Amino acid sequence: MLTRIDHVGIACRNLAESIAYYESTFGLVVVNREQNEDQGVSEAMLRVADGAVGASYVQLLEPLGPDTPVGRFLQRRGEGIHHVGYGVADIAAALAAIGATGVRLLDQRPRHGSMGASIAFLHPADVGGVLTELVQAAEQR
Amino acid sequence: MLTRIDHVGIACRNLAESIAYYESTFGLVVVNREQNEDQGVSEAMLRVADGAVGASYVQLLEPLGPDTPVGRFLQRRGEGIHHVGYGVADIAAALAAIGATGVRLLDQRPRHGSMGASIAFLHPADVGGVLTELVQAAEQR
Repeated sequence: MLTRIDHVGIACRNLAESIAYYESTFGLVVVNREQNEDQGVSEAMLRVADGAVGASYVQLLEPLGPDTPVGRFLQRRGEGIHHVGYGVADIAAALAAIGATGVRLLDQRPRHGSMGASIAFLHPADVGGVLTELVQAAEQR
Repeated sequence: MLTRIDHVGIACRNLAESIAYYESTFGLVVVNREQNEDQGVSEAMLRVADGAVGASYVQLLEPLGPDTPVGRFLQRRGEGIHHVGYGVADIAAALAAIGATGVRLLDQRPRHGSMGASIAFLHPADVGGVLTELVQAAEQR
């Protein structure tokens, strides 16, 4: 069902500074920046690798305000890993299968994610404390 | 420098239960189990994908006791994402390059990781709160 680790989502206080850090320290390259009002973040995707089944990314997330999911995360835990996103070939089928096991879906239906992907989050309390995202990349739609 | 997201390390209280969960919910398959006394964990690697540059894994980590890094993490934060591991082709070269930027290395020299890999951790305070591991897979040595 899971085809790859699509990305690791990292909460940061200053997107420009974090981008500069990942570029200079690890040689990663920004391939996309966008603002997602729905999720309350300004974000950047930095490509790590191009796998046979799709690329993997570091996703840097700066909250648009303190009263957003990532804003609250920063207040509670500080900067760090916020979530993990796994690639799936068919997000509707994956959500149906996972929901059938009893895992609560934070998104009953896929919504808009980075770079035109369809994404949905699972409830971390049902995934061992891990905020887990499913990602169907735009190319596969 | 970073060739892939090698794994996401997830701290759990009961390895057997977490393995069963990831198998039944996401269809992942355990490809390795081992105990690492050095790191104080009993662990399992579950394969997510086989990329062109190597597989990616979910790494489940149960501490061998409360006074271990993962044991302390569980007490402080509960179950959840503990670290991210990135693949590198040459870990000695990567450590030298990253150390030269001023990032503190928790391991000055590579040590033994999962499945015969050479691994080293970077100080999370110097990587935006992210405990970051470099992984040179055994095949590449």
